[in-house]
Amino acid sequence: VIAPEVGADRVGVGVLGATGYSGLELIRLLASHPRAALRAVGSRQAAGERLSRVWPSHPGLDLVLDDDPADPAAWLDRGVEVVFAALPHGAFAARAEAFLAAGLRVVDLSGDFRLESAAEYGQRYGLEHPAPSLLGTAAYGLTEWCGAELEAASLVANPGCYATAVLLATLPAVAAGRWSGAAIVANALSGVSGAGRAPSLGTHFVEVSGGAGPYRVGEVHAHLGEMRQALARAQAGGSVGGGAPGEASAASDDTSLPLLFSPHLVPMSRGIAASIAVPLARRAREEEIRALYRERYAGHAFVRVLDGDSLPDTRHVRGSNRCDIAMRVGAGGTMLLAYAALDNLVKGAAGQAIQNWNRMQGWPEPTGLPIDGWAIA
Amino acid sequence: VIAPEVGADRVGVGVLGATGYSGLELIRLLASHPRAALRAVGSRQAAGERLSRVWPSHPGLDLVLDDDPADPAAWLDRGVEVVFAALPHGAFAARAEAFLAAGLRVVDLSGDFRLESAAEYGQRYGLEHPAPSLLGTAAYGLTEWCGAELEAASLVANPGCYATAVLLATLPAVAAGRWSGAAIVANALSGVSGAGRAPSLGTHFVEVSGGAGPYRVGEVHAHLGEMRQALARAQAGGSVGGGAPGEASAASDDTSLPLLFSPHLVPMSRGIAASIAVPLARRAREEEIRALYRERYAGHAFVRVLDGDSLPDTRHVRGSNRCDIAMRVGAGGTMLLAYAALDNLVKGAAGQAIQNWNRMQGWPEPTGLPIDGWAIA
Amino acid sequence: VIAPEVGADRVGVGVLGATGYSGLELIRLLASHPRAALRAVGSRQAAGERLSRVWPSHPGLDLVLDDDPADPAAWLDRGVEVVFAALPHGAFAARAEAFLAAGLRVVDLSGDFRLESAAEYGQRYGLEHPAPSLLGTAAYGLTEWCGAELEAASLVANPGCYATAVLLATLPAVAAGRWSGAAIVANALSGVSGAGRAPSLGTHFVEVSGGAGPYRVGEVHAHLGEMRQALARAQAGGSVGGGAPGEASAASDDTSLPLLFSPHLVPMSRGIAASIAVPLARRAREEEIRALYRERYAGHAFVRVLDGDSLPDTRHVRGSNRCDIAMRVGAGGTMLLAYAALDNLVKGAAGQAIQNWNRMQGWPEPTGLPIDGWAIA
Amino acid sequence: VIAPEVGADRVGVGVLGATGYSGLELIRLLASHPRAALRAVGSRQAAGERLSRVWPSHPGLDLVLDDDPADPAAWLDRGVEVVFAALPHGAFAARAEAFLAAGLRVVDLSGDFRLESAAEYGQRYGLEHPAPSLLGTAAYGLTEWCGAELEAASLVANPGCYATAVLLATLPAVAAGRWSGAAIVANALSGVSGAGRAPSLGTHFVEVSGGAGPYRVGEVHAHLGEMRQALARAQAGGSVGGGAPGEASAASDDTSLPLLFSPHLVPMSRGIAASIAVPLARRAREEEIRALYRERYAGHAFVRVLDGDSLPDTRHVRGSNRCDIAMRVGAGGTMLLAYAALDNLVKGAAGQAIQNWNRMQGWPEPTGLPIDGWAIA
Repeated sequence: VIAPEVGADRVGVGVLGATGYSGLELIRLLASHPRAALRAVGSRQAAGERLSRVWPSHPGLDLVLDDDPADPAAWLDRGVEVVFAALPHGAFAARAEAFLAAGLRVVDLSGDFRLESAAEYGQRYGLEHPAPSLLGTAAYGLTEWCGAELEAASLVANPGCYATAVLLATLPAVAAGRWSGAAIVANALSGVSGAGRAPSLGTHFVEVSGGAGPYRVGEVHAHLGEMRQALARAQAGGSVGGGAPGEASAASDDTSLPLLFSPHLVPMSRGIAASIAVPLARRAREEEIRALYRERYAGHAFVRVLDGDSLPDTRHVRGSNRCDIAMRVGAGGTMLLAYAALDNLVKGAAGQAIQNWNRMQGWPEPTGLPIDGWAIA
Repeated sequence: VIAPEVGADRVGVGVLGATGYSGLELIRLLASHPRAALRAVGSRQAAGERLSRVWPSHPGLDLVLDDDPADPAAWLDRGVEVVFAALPHGAFAARAEAFLAAGLRVVDLSGDFRLESAAEYGQRYGLEHPAPSLLGTAAYGLTEWCGAELEAASLVANPGCYATAVLLATLPAVAAGRWSGAAIVANALSGVSGAGRAPSLGTHFVEVSGGAGPYRVGEVHAHLGEMRQALARAQAGGSVGGGAPGEASAASDDTSLPLLFSPHLVPMSRGIAASIAVPLARRAREEEIRALYRERYAGHAFVRVLDGDSLPDTRHVRGSNRCDIAMRVGAGGTMLLAYAALDNLVKGAAGQAIQNWNRMQGWPEPTGLPIDGWAIA
Repeated sequence: VIAPEVGADRVGVGVLGATGYSGLELIRLLASHPRAALRAVGSRQAAGERLSRVWPSHPGLDLVLDDDPADPAAWLDRGVEVVFAALPHGAFAARAEAFLAAGLRVVDLSGDFRLESAAEYGQRYGLEHPAPSLLGTAAYGLTEWCGAELEAASLVANPGCYATAVLLATLPAVAAGRWSGAAIVANALSGVSGAGRAPSLGTHFVEVSGGAGPYRVGEVHAHLGEMRQALARAQAGGSVGGGAPGEASAASDDTSLPLLFSPHLVPMSRGIAASIAVPLARRAREEEIRALYRERYAGHAFVRVLDGDSLPDTRHVRGSNRCDIAMRVGAGGTMLLAYAALDNLVKGAAGQAIQNWNRMQGWPEPTGLPIDGWAIA
Repeated sequence: VIAPEVGADRVGVGVLGATGYSGLELIRLLASHPRAALRAVGSRQAAGERLSRVWPSHPGLDLVLDDDPADPAAWLDRGVEVVFAALPHGAFAARAEAFLAAGLRVVDLSGDFRLESAAEYGQRYGLEHPAPSLLGTAAYGLTEWCGAELEAASLVANPGCYATAVLLATLPAVAAGRWSGAAIVANALSGVSGAGRAPSLGTHFVEVSGGAGPYRVGEVHAHLGEMRQALARAQAGGSVGGGAPGEASAASDDTSLPLLFSPHLVPMSRGIAASIAVPLARRAREEEIRALYRERYAGHAFVRVLDGDSLPDTRHVRGSNRCDIAMRVGAGGTMLLAYAALDNLVKGAAGQAIQNWNRMQGWPEPTGLPIDGWAIA
């Protein structure tokens, strides 16, 4: 048992997808969360095995994997109150309604509930949406940009890792009306864990080692949808966490909302570094923009706006739930260059999911989440 | 002796800076060059040592390192006709005149002769230029963009690694008048060998491993000068290889020539991947731009314009003198996204230096240079 | 302040060497230790700087670095009761007496107090011992093999990283009289952080990446002394933690105690994997030896004897204070092959130092120390 | 066509398994071999594709992949005289007879023809041998230890990568009668390309990165068979390249020939580093053993016995066909410690295959093979 001293002040949680990287990360963080009691862990691939057998680095995880699909009623009986679903896109959505109907709250880490529009989902993910009736009911869990939505939400759509980095670095300028509307150029570098744990030629050590380059550029990457939707909401002055349905629908391509996104794969396990150029509506000085960002993120423990002599790096946020952001202004003050780094598995996945859950429960956002990272790894 | 079978058809060469990464790379490539006879190798740090002792991977390099500063007359006596200088910025320039005066031709891999303006040099490199009278006399050796300059040149300034990638990927559009003049956003990733071989905290394995992020962004990076100079020359319809002095002087900041450059360090030894957004003067289709690039680079063995379903990656050019380029068009055809990858030590340094030398000698550009790379390294 | 809620149940600690890898690791672990109050941090290189500036991954470390050499009296006044010294060999020993005289307890992570014999120290470290009168007064802190010594100790010599791995994997057999006395062959692989943080050609990313090989083989490595001393003590039936002076003196070369040690450097940041062949005094079956090991380490949370179908790997212990051990028997039952993996900065340095301190204080060994590691890093 | 200038002095070659790492390496090396004309390339997975499409790093490889199984008669018609088979164990053996019957010579890189005994093969590879009648007819191609066998051979069994490293480092001592017969302890580190190109969890970047540890220890590894067979042949004074059938049969376990082998996986793409302890029959000095090794390998370009102050490293042999060997003597002169490093894909696979072919053709061994490696990769 993870938490033998479980008392009345803990909430029962369950995790689906425990053999994947985000699933393990959820379990790792929940195991030391002072208000969580991990009561059930599900896996499609390793049902019946000890979790410590699947993850030899975690002999302390003395749990046996449930079969998945899990039965919501059975999980409820075992004291589960909230489910974190860390399954591939399309795998959990059809079952979400049953979990919600049973009275469980759900934080979904897949892309299934991030978009308002079933059409946009189909285009981005190449699937017919398995539960279109739930679209628009989920809060989009970019924690620092969600207001009352999270407290009330039964279903939270946890943002994509790239989307988290790009949006945290651009939304303050966009929401403040500083974006000119001309094309935003977003480049990002990702570690290999972002591609998941299923073996493929593209994640083979020999194929990754010593290489770096772009992939899925143009209008291809799935995260483009949620990035455009959030930017459109912010531009319109609405809440990023979930505006009135339909508002963002027009922002589905690179002409209606000119965001050009180029992801790159680099030979590291964890981390996203995003570098984004935002054309400004009027000339600005660097300090002015930095002040705007600092004001926007004041009181938010996990977004750190760096001083002018520092720049973010994935090794500074490895293992942490932080997103570090820096900025420069160029082209005579007409272009903002925003730089962000986060750990794709923490702030880009499991950490933000727990941060959202903390908000759902009314606890302080940082509860159980690491500010400091692993300098040496 | 590298080339015991040296005959009348070989030209004597010397290399300065043999204990650095670019120096070794020069020696490695010259050792198998069918027209080169490597006659002298100089080092400030390891004079008197066998080269195979400095580089245990190269027992075949049976040469003893000369002391450096080398004596041009003595080198001439030993049959050296051309000198490749691979020393840090500012270390060779003051001696260049003596080598030239002795009748030797020089390919300089440092940044010392790339810029026309001593003022711009001072700003970029933080040094007073050691030989200002030579400024403007060097051909800028971006091989594919130099015409008659190279054949006639006594002194060639080999371009910087980042500059080579960024310029090869943008010049066809700029020279064809397709650039709108709005800010170009250039991001690039570099392997660690680009920082040289001198140990520092920033190149320590533990500090680099698993990290990725920007550095020297804003108006800081030394290569900004040569990139702007070349873009301004191309925009003005002049030769990138060296226009009439003074032409490019106005292009020294981000307002006169709005190029925003963000270099990033990633955990690999070799390679540069550049991703550049170029605002277009008028709407274009991807195929149209690709055709323009293909036409421009037709007949150039080392620039490969990829098909629309491919993207460049540093592991595809590792060990090769190629620069692979791909392109996409976004934002309704108003923005060109150009992607380039090259090996910073080959096409970005030693390989291009030899390519320039081949042109100086009137030999075919590919003489002695590898098209294929190291798929597995 | 790390621990604003410091109460009467916390003990004040100080750390010397905070800008090194072991120093940071101590601070990282002590910051979440429920009984530690980190009151002073010293650095020779970065006095006056914020710790979070030296380590951007740790914005939560809101401490200013003291100048070093620190004044024991001043530290005592500030509530420091125990000092962890993580300085290079020879740097702290001369000051140790002053700290001890002031009533502070000391855990020293250097090699200065591990050996009984000043002569052996001189041979191993190439230095005259700075405080020979303290030799033999320190407890050798291989926690699982120290008895009452630790509780009573004022000065603990924390073992070397290689020594910890090799000894934990061999001592159960040796102490049980199962070693034949013929040559033990110990090979070990280490990550680069074991070489410290000072930049050198040998730790340059480009020189390390993609390479693997032995170094300091033969009678050269400094850890040979403490390994032989501990094996001799165990063979003689004495306590590994510190026997009667003189006992182990005869074990100072490869004939008196035939241990052959070959360390290897591999391209990773953390971790040691040791593979050791121990000739057995009489034939044995694998299960018999495993049972012997399991009995010896029963009740010790940080040594895990794996099942017969598992093998240790550094990635399973990364970030953890565990040492995983597996064994096979070969050559007709006459040879034990013992395999161990640990994190050189945790169980091989900072973690074991804190484990020793827990014992000094009479707290449970696992207090504040991680069992689980970082599966993905 | 690789070699458009093919003349009468070139021999037609074919390669099977062109989409694997050893296959590519064969093609890469054969493409610059002055006596080879690459006429056919076969693949089970990518028939009909351009080789430059499968390997984007090799646009110069302008060949279309044949379907495989290839027809020996058709290949003969196309001028193929020798076939290099780089397929998984068990995949080619059944077809070998047809190729041989058609008059083609075969160098097989799999484990299928390395062992004399079908029973041993079954035990090592878990397969019934597909062509037992060919067992014992192949020359075992450890080039430096094969005599007249290679020149006459129609079928050469190319050794395993681990076996090559371990045998080159131990055979001089064993063949000279210096081995005592007590257990040899062989540890080796391998890069990930040794596991092949098929994706698996064990070769996933995230699972490999930052980890190091043993695998397939005990009596499990397939290369144990050929290592024991060669050692037994050398011990008996016979030829390692293929003794009288039956001689080595008794050497099939760890009691009849006590070799204990522990392979380790480390996070690099290429390379094997082996560290082997050989008990000596009588006391020896290091220089005496080094002289013995130097005499044995005199005239062999690809085995380099290092000086006493050097040690082998995989980065020194990366890309080269060399095997670097160093030695120390310990335990009072009773134990030889031999260290070897080679590139598993070159001297451990494709390079040695071509070296063997050079011998088969009566050409100098180094023809077309690299002595120098890639210092920076």
